[in-house]
Amino acid sequence: MERKHFSQKFDQELAQLKEKLLYMGGLVEGMIRESIGSLLNRKSSLAEQVLVKDLTVNRLEVEIDEAAIQILALRQPTAKDLRFLTTALKIGTDIERIGDEAVNIAERAIELNKEPHLKPYIDIPRMAEMAEQMLKDSLDAFVNHNTRLALKVCKEDDFIDDLNRQILRELLTYMIEDPATVSRAMKIVFVSKYLERIADHSTNIAEMVVYMVEGRIIRHLDIDTIED
Amino acid sequence: MERKHFSQKFDQELAQLKEKLLYMGGLVEGMIRESIGSLLNRKSSLAEQVLVKDLTVNRLEVEIDEAAIQILALRQPTAKDLRFLTTALKIGTDIERIGDEAVNIAERAIELNKEPHLKPYIDIPRMAEMAEQMLKDSLDAFVNHNTRLALKVCKEDDFIDDLNRQILRELLTYMIEDPATVSRAMKIVFVSKYLERIADHSTNIAEMVVYMVEGRIIRHLDIDTIED
Repeated sequence: MERKHFSQKFDQELAQLKEKLLYMGGLVEGMIRESIGSLLNRKSSLAEQVLVKDLTVNRLEVEIDEAAIQILALRQPTAKDLRFLTTALKIGTDIERIGDEAVNIAERAIELNKEPHLKPYIDIPRMAEMAEQMLKDSLDAFVNHNTRLALKVCKEDDFIDDLNRQILRELLTYMIEDPATVSRAMKIVFVSKYLERIADHSTNIAEMVVYMVEGRIIRHLDIDTIED
Repeated sequence: MERKHFSQKFDQELAQLKEKLLYMGGLVEGMIRESIGSLLNRKSSLAEQVLVKDLTVNRLEVEIDEAAIQILALRQPTAKDLRFLTTALKIGTDIERIGDEAVNIAERAIELNKEPHLKPYIDIPRMAEMAEQMLKDSLDAFVNHNTRLALKVCKEDDFIDDLNRQILRELLTYMIEDPATVSRAMKIVFVSKYLERIADHSTNIAEMVVYMVEGRIIRHLDIDTIED
């Protein structure tokens, strides 16, 4: 009876931690959408919201760290639960850093919204949508122990890298043809870089999910040779 | 007797883990130096070495993760040792990502070395030296439980951000004055960004050291208000 009580409480603690990570992930997904929305619709108030939300994300990261370490200390879990907790510790850091990248996008958006519009955005919204979906999928994979979905995220990272290179190439031609565009074009190049980093962090999360579920470390392996 | 034996073996495992982290840190410090050296001396063979070393760094990260998790599982440590192990897990990730940034610098160096020299580098080597020192100090702080040194690293991050902005401003004027420089100048802007990220990761490590030693989470606090 004592044991059962212990185990129920333990499961509850793990569930709460998972829920908090997902809540944090949802907040950060919103921050990506709003920071890019602020850029596309030239609406700086949206970007301001992102800066405010980041404070909550920072607090959540600390809470998740403390909760995971407390469970490790009190419950001394092994095997599957231990891997879940060490993964949660690492995933929390990556989600928080995605939040930082959304803040970077929001800051560039506020700057760009003060200057004349340079060009219609075509690849940036595609890239943002994809990066946000990668974060969403990596967290879904985490909750549902879905390695197939995690591996899908890892494979998408190459596509994001291609988009980033394409955006850079296009903006270089703008800068070379008209030096008056240099400062604005650079800021858009940075936005593209921030999105690339968001995709990188999501890929890190996905790789950790594979480790958590299978105990198999796929980081630093060639993704195309990995079987799902 | 049994207990003493257990404890000696445990201390030994912790010491080995610490040693491995330091070895990895030393490798990555060398990678920063070589990637920047490759750029400054226009010597691509140095950059090639960085790419090779990164494979070892990647392997070490996996080994550190596995060692830390195995100790957590078998020894079920509490308090100070538990914080050391969760910190080691996170620090390993940051060191590995610093290695990735050194690889990014090496790749840009190889590209830049094929083109005519744009300008003498003044701020880039200063920034690189400072970033490398920050990594070194953050790891020294980790080994010696030195929070004063860790807080020094956190404070230096602002200076790196200033240098990065200064480099960006200078390169923007090159690009605006002579469009033929745009592609090369952009690559140097990226190198500066990579160095900024190395400093960010070192700051992350330093913040974790403060947490490990004092159980105090200083991430997301205003560094100037923190007393050492």
